[in-house]
Amino acid sequence: MKKDPSRRKLLSMGAGLAALTACTAEKQEAPSQVGKALSPYGERSSRETAKRLVPADSKTPSTGGSRTPLQESYGTITPSSLHFERHHSGVPDLDPATHELLIHGLVEQPLVYSLADLKRFPATTRVHFVECSGNGTSEYTAALGPTAQVSHGLASCSEWTGVPVKLLLAEAKLKPEAKWVIAEGGDACKLARSIPLAKLMDDAMIVYAQNGEAIRPEQGYPMRLLLPGFEGNTNVKWIRRLHATAEPAQTTHETAYYTDLMPDGKARQFSFDLEGKSVITHPSGGQKLTGGAGAFEITGLAWSGRGKITRVEVSSDGGKTWKDAELNQPIHSKAFVRFRMPWNWDGGAVTLQSRATDDSGYTQVSQDELAAARGRNYRYHNNGIKVWYIQPDGSVTHAAQV
Amino acid sequence: MKKDPSRRKLLSMGAGLAALTACTAEKQEAPSQVGKALSPYGERSSRETAKRLVPADSKTPSTGGSRTPLQESYGTITPSSLHFERHHSGVPDLDPATHELLIHGLVEQPLVYSLADLKRFPATTRVHFVECSGNGTSEYTAALGPTAQVSHGLASCSEWTGVPVKLLLAEAKLKPEAKWVIAEGGDACKLARSIPLAKLMDDAMIVYAQNGEAIRPEQGYPMRLLLPGFEGNTNVKWIRRLHATAEPAQTTHETAYYTDLMPDGKARQFSFDLEGKSVITHPSGGQKLTGGAGAFEITGLAWSGRGKITRVEVSSDGGKTWKDAELNQPIHSKAFVRFRMPWNWDGGAVTLQSRATDDSGYTQVSQDELAAARGRNYRYHNNGIKVWYIQPDGSVTHAAQV
Repeated sequence: MKKDPSRRKLLSMGAGLAALTACTAEKQEAPSQVGKALSPYGERSSRETAKRLVPADSKTPSTGGSRTPLQESYGTITPSSLHFERHHSGVPDLDPATHELLIHGLVEQPLVYSLADLKRFPATTRVHFVECSGNGTSEYTAALGPTAQVSHGLASCSEWTGVPVKLLLAEAKLKPEAKWVIAEGGDACKLARSIPLAKLMDDAMIVYAQNGEAIRPEQGYPMRLLLPGFEGNTNVKWIRRLHATAEPAQTTHETAYYTDLMPDGKARQFSFDLEGKSVITHPSGGQKLTGGAGAFEITGLAWSGRGKITRVEVSSDGGKTWKDAELNQPIHSKAFVRFRMPWNWDGGAVTLQSRATDDSGYTQVSQDELAAARGRNYRYHNNGIKVWYIQPDGSVTHAAQV
Repeated sequence: MKKDPSRRKLLSMGAGLAALTACTAEKQEAPSQVGKALSPYGERSSRETAKRLVPADSKTPSTGGSRTPLQESYGTITPSSLHFERHHSGVPDLDPATHELLIHGLVEQPLVYSLADLKRFPATTRVHFVECSGNGTSEYTAALGPTAQVSHGLASCSEWTGVPVKLLLAEAKLKPEAKWVIAEGGDACKLARSIPLAKLMDDAMIVYAQNGEAIRPEQGYPMRLLLPGFEGNTNVKWIRRLHATAEPAQTTHETAYYTDLMPDGKARQFSFDLEGKSVITHPSGGQKLTGGAGAFEITGLAWSGRGKITRVEVSSDGGKTWKDAELNQPIHSKAFVRFRMPWNWDGGAVTLQSRATDDSGYTQVSQDELAAARGRNYRYHNNGIKVWYIQPDGSVTHAAQV
């Protein structure tokens, strides 16, 4: 180790960005003792505290949702341990050696597949987000979500591996009158949704792996239906059967839930698509900019169930002007995209917001514009622009005043 | 639940592929009790057993390597818990609140960065493999590695997030005579390697996140140097300083280790690049094809430290003829690529092998060709073709006879 350099930090980050204040942190010495041993299955540092937000004091802890800490996310992959959850009757303990997928109904050849059978089919691996259609419900209220975890944390993104559903349906030989498929899960409530056949013949998969290992129990172990870009509950977990039919089944989860109440009192059913969306994850609600004015990175996530994100713009003046953020490459379709923008905070009160555009040409609009188009009875599919307020003390909130 | 369909399975997977034998598995009922509750940080199923291979009965469990179970891998991302390890003095327990990165030597402005400082810089996220140059040492021996984990498991692939090193060096203002940078780790042995400046000004990063969360302790928590495509030990973990110099430092790890002994008795130093490589992960050594002859998927991983994999070919006739495998898209540079090929096993003895080509034009060669070019004294950088032998009983081995 050479002698110490000047302790003064110069973090200019290019012309026009402010220097950081001086730092007096003590120099750290490397440890002189050997460290921990090799291990068969590693864990994160005990110093790390990022966690899913689980409802406190729930009397039904097996149902409900837990939210991904997007404000502590990096890149585009969500760690499987932090992937959001939404269960209707808890996480079943299914045995991959005996669990089976049944394909029946309007087919020439009913079939039953074990997990081992599915692994003999040609597989595919793709990065896709999954999002609960209830993600953003907070933004319909006056309270608004105070953190990115509360407002947007029912969305996560993984590398999924599995079998295209169209290969399985080809084996079963659909009858011409088959137009829908009822997908039913192996949880106690047997959550079931009616899926248009066209989606299953497009990019649907039965996935058995997530982020390089067996899919996690909370995500459907040993297998789930993945419908890229479709609202989360249709991506039926613990999938146990695909039942081909001529008409949708009108299950509880497409009548009592997951419909959209319109201003005229009628409800939209089968509003599967998740539209373009974005959220700034740093700086975001609950965080605090430390060290005073100077250079920071604005970063966040954008995604669309319709295809690829083509543009994310950021405004720091209440939406009057917008500037293109950099999109981390490569951009996957129907997947989280990480956006970034260098930013020089002047130390004053400021609003920050982002809006995403996807390759269908859709661009996010404000909450007010969303309400004007849909009315105020919606509970699902909130993809309006999220605004954060930076206070002069560096704290970040979801409201203009704290 | 409708009444049962025929239990006969028909898994034809297209014309020309054999049907599976009949199956008599019992139909599984969905559970009638609610399952496990929501949780703040999930874990894999207790039924999953994939693990890193740790040397048994080591008297120095803090040093050495543990290997990724590639034969149980899916897709291209390695779960962080299964990322291979190679430590020279164990995993230090560093505090991210006090750990610092020092940049000094031939610079105009010595600098010290905390983790919080680094997070203010423009970040980047990329998928890259890391591989120990000793990966494949088994293939120089007559014994050969019996499983993909033994022969190729000192390689893993992650989504990394961090700061380009060139941004940090620009702040420090290198002097014209600086040509190398000594990278030193914060472990007890202070592992140090001399890195050519050109690499640091290219795609090098100081990474603080891996697969969406803080980098794992075994991978350098709270920060490591990432040199995409360079042999693993140069990607210094627990990085604590970058020391700009005119000449390499000739550290222990570039003289006593990590050099390549040539036939003439001289050793090559600074052989950083990891060349094109591939391994079939299924079927692979230690696995067994069950159910007899029929349709299976051949799948594996390919990677190159020189750039993008452009082609993977598979031979099932001892290398006489080769057929292109499908490459899972998109293909990242200096990253794992998943390749796949549908395959109809006729139930007889057969050899399977893969060879990768990268965008530098390089194609893998056999172990014999490798030895003819390099001699037999090499210990590192074995990227020869790996051959698996399928026995008529379905077992897969690393040798022609069992």
